[in-house]
Amino acid sequence: MPKIRRIPIDTHPENTAFLLREGNGYSPEQFQALKKIRITGRCSEILATLALVDDGNILKPGEIGLGEQAFRRLGQEEGEEVEIAQARPPASLEYVRRKIDGDTLGDSEISAIIRDISRHLYSPMEIGAFLVACAGFMSTPETLAMTRAMVDVGSRLKWDSPLVVDKHCIGGIPGNRTSMIVVPIVAAHGLLIPKTSSRAITSPSGTADTMEVLANVDLTGEEMSTIVAQERAVLAWGGRVNLSPADDVLISVERPLRIDTYEQMVASILSKKAAAGSTHLVIDIPVGPTAKVRSQSDAVRLRKLFEYVARHMNIVTDVVITDGSQPVGRGIGPVLEARDVMAVLRNEADAPEDLRDHALLLAGRVLDFDPALEGGRGYARALEMLASGAALEAMERLIEAQGRQTANLQPGSHQFEVQAQRKGAVRAIDCHQIARIARLAGAPMDKGAGIDLVRKIGEQVRRGDTLYRIYANTQTGLGFARELAEEDSGYELQA
Amino acid sequence: MPKIRRIPIDTHPENTAFLLREGNGYSPEQFQALKKIRITGRCSEILATLALVDDGNILKPGEIGLGEQAFRRLGQEEGEEVEIAQARPPASLEYVRRKIDGDTLGDSEISAIIRDISRHLYSPMEIGAFLVACAGFMSTPETLAMTRAMVDVGSRLKWDSPLVVDKHCIGGIPGNRTSMIVVPIVAAHGLLIPKTSSRAITSPSGTADTMEVLANVDLTGEEMSTIVAQERAVLAWGGRVNLSPADDVLISVERPLRIDTYEQMVASILSKKAAAGSTHLVIDIPVGPTAKVRSQSDAVRLRKLFEYVARHMNIVTDVVITDGSQPVGRGIGPVLEARDVMAVLRNEADAPEDLRDHALLLAGRVLDFDPALEGGRGYARALEMLASGAALEAMERLIEAQGRQTANLQPGSHQFEVQAQRKGAVRAIDCHQIARIARLAGAPMDKGAGIDLVRKIGEQVRRGDTLYRIYANTQTGLGFARELAEEDSGYELQA
Repeated sequence: MPKIRRIPIDTHPENTAFLLREGNGYSPEQFQALKKIRITGRCSEILATLALVDDGNILKPGEIGLGEQAFRRLGQEEGEEVEIAQARPPASLEYVRRKIDGDTLGDSEISAIIRDISRHLYSPMEIGAFLVACAGFMSTPETLAMTRAMVDVGSRLKWDSPLVVDKHCIGGIPGNRTSMIVVPIVAAHGLLIPKTSSRAITSPSGTADTMEVLANVDLTGEEMSTIVAQERAVLAWGGRVNLSPADDVLISVERPLRIDTYEQMVASILSKKAAAGSTHLVIDIPVGPTAKVRSQSDAVRLRKLFEYVARHMNIVTDVVITDGSQPVGRGIGPVLEARDVMAVLRNEADAPEDLRDHALLLAGRVLDFDPALEGGRGYARALEMLASGAALEAMERLIEAQGRQTANLQPGSHQFEVQAQRKGAVRAIDCHQIARIARLAGAPMDKGAGIDLVRKIGEQVRRGDTLYRIYANTQTGLGFARELAEEDSGYELQA
Repeated sequence: MPKIRRIPIDTHPENTAFLLREGNGYSPEQFQALKKIRITGRCSEILATLALVDDGNILKPGEIGLGEQAFRRLGQEEGEEVEIAQARPPASLEYVRRKIDGDTLGDSEISAIIRDISRHLYSPMEIGAFLVACAGFMSTPETLAMTRAMVDVGSRLKWDSPLVVDKHCIGGIPGNRTSMIVVPIVAAHGLLIPKTSSRAITSPSGTADTMEVLANVDLTGEEMSTIVAQERAVLAWGGRVNLSPADDVLISVERPLRIDTYEQMVASILSKKAAAGSTHLVIDIPVGPTAKVRSQSDAVRLRKLFEYVARHMNIVTDVVITDGSQPVGRGIGPVLEARDVMAVLRNEADAPEDLRDHALLLAGRVLDFDPALEGGRGYARALEMLASGAALEAMERLIEAQGRQTANLQPGSHQFEVQAQRKGAVRAIDCHQIARIARLAGAPMDKGAGIDLVRKIGEQVRRGDTLYRIYANTQTGLGFARELAEEDSGYELQA
């Protein structure tokens, strides 16, 4: 049995194993069969792609090299013996092939696929094949089965309350950081709202990235429980608590292929909400020309799919269709968004109004879940919590409880102003383009990077007026972002 | 600009590039963006997946490491400077996304996709996504467009004759080595039949693998021309002349995903035939319970698709639907098949009859393309060519012209007999299982490996009678094959 040697090569997200081509007694045909191998250690096993090494300095006969990612995932020591064998393709691939052939799959078949995916037994190519086949056609029962299967392979959070509320936006609108306002409002009122959020996937910031500007978000399930018991709320990163490991794998393929079907979206969101223990959920679907959902009729189709699956998962759902015609607020990127959020909570005079209105609308709908409130009183109560400073107080307590961020994060030190090339009214702002520019500047990894919008739709500008400022902490980041902004600013002006 | 360093690591079929994580001035975020890079040299460029190296012995700052495959594909010397940049996804991926969304693509869009695929600009995941989207729905005009695009990106062979005949079987039936009998029959009659064949992809042997037992098949276009001018025929490996480079890339993904739609099959086969300069083509579609086509109605659908695309490609086509209920002949694997083929050509008494009949049927249909022959005389003429020894003579001349194989290849020295577990009549032989066992034994890389069938459908056996023999040249290969045969012999016996 070969001994593990750690190879200082990082091929994330793929597991790679290395074998010396000569001296291990394998023939070329056998290596052909060993393209993908199963490595079995004392108490774990992984699949890896095999790379052949022709240099005895990198690896010796009798050794199996593991790249950084494979070494971490196997979790054994260097020098330990492992067994290697040809990786037989997972049995559930047969169901994927049937799905490609146009079959509708049963619950147990979908469940087997999701289980194998969550165990990293599928290659990106195989995951892509499954996702594209599903994008071609997926029944509502299949979507439900996938949601359930995704919950089953992850951890679940449990809360000691019959009413666990949550809100979720399907995303796609830069700056739309309402959760960090909704959660303190709802907590101030007194409902239980343990909110787990993701980091950015394709956007310049996720709620977890922005919250991290103010407080620690990397909390264990236990830490979350303690904080929720005390504050009735939390604003944590969901990745730590492994709510939907299958979804994390699926997303790694959906992103480069830009697969964003309603079925995948519903399964992804509702599986995470079910795993997070939510009983009542407000879902925000922004509709706009550059939003994820572009027409009212599409929004209705998506709403119905959410309702169908949520009902069968026993989650009470209120789907809200909102205006997604442009970015919300002014700041885009963690630091700039955190600034906007705190300005709203502090009731500052120049706090972005659209962010405030949007958050109040959603918070009101969440509060309407409270049986103790008179019907239709949610919005007024939300406004009261915000205006009175109770929400700000709740947020400050939450920040303390999670661990206040010690670094004083500021907008990036490098800046560039994007100016109007001519006079006119701002007719449209392209959410995608703005997000891409902010990401190139360095968001979300560079917390201070991003965009500060100076003008929004409907405003009149003159030639040379600043449309927005790009911030970055590196000259390279600013350069990339500036280049893209000069190619296409994302703003459409009408004479 | 970084200098090339060759890294003795083979990650075939993926291009891999290596950079030192520290010391090159890249931030983690930038590496994130550089997951896939474009490497531009003096006169070529490639895309590669980036692996990060944490050991200065493998790579120095200022160097870009290229794995064996990437180094070969770029084709520059070590130490030369290259430019590296983030690989922007190919523009045609946008069409793939539209195809995933259910759109029907236009000719120019399909052409752009195929061009980028043939230039290795797509990842396996992206190719898989395209293929699965096509498997979901593909119109006949799309299939035609794909066929044309595949011809356009490859080389074409030109022959100085108005009638260039060919035959092709869609595959899936082990031992079905008719081309090596049809070609000498047709050549003996006097039609031009320059036959290019593939090596095995998922089968235990392709025509090129079996022919190679007797003669050199690795011929340049020029060598083929010389031989065809002299012999009116050739039996060469098509891979050497680059007839459909896009198809080669597609196949590398179709195989592991086992995507085998009629549309892909037609585009693959007809693009290669058009590129090979065929004007008249007989297509053999075997139908059987474990064949690629399992019902008569499916065979008719496939026939019509062949006819539609071939007509628009100006290839006269005669589609023959044949019996594919079990392997053809006795031998499976290069050496064993070559033995059967030669036994038929030599009119030996114990030559496998089904192989002979099948080859005569197809050769007759090919000869029916000859306007000089009276209608319906093809079969009789084929029989005449075979029985008179003219076909054998043509084959011997062809072998000489291509270069007779100097090694005297024999069936593998390790053998195992698979025996009937009980008395009964052979009711079915599973083509897939037989092919898998022969491959595990080592076919086609190990020329002598394979299976020799002793019993065929309808024969009576007693317990302990030999059903077939497995041959291999390595003990490992024999062990693998034997294990699988003991799990499931592929034979079904009826009491």
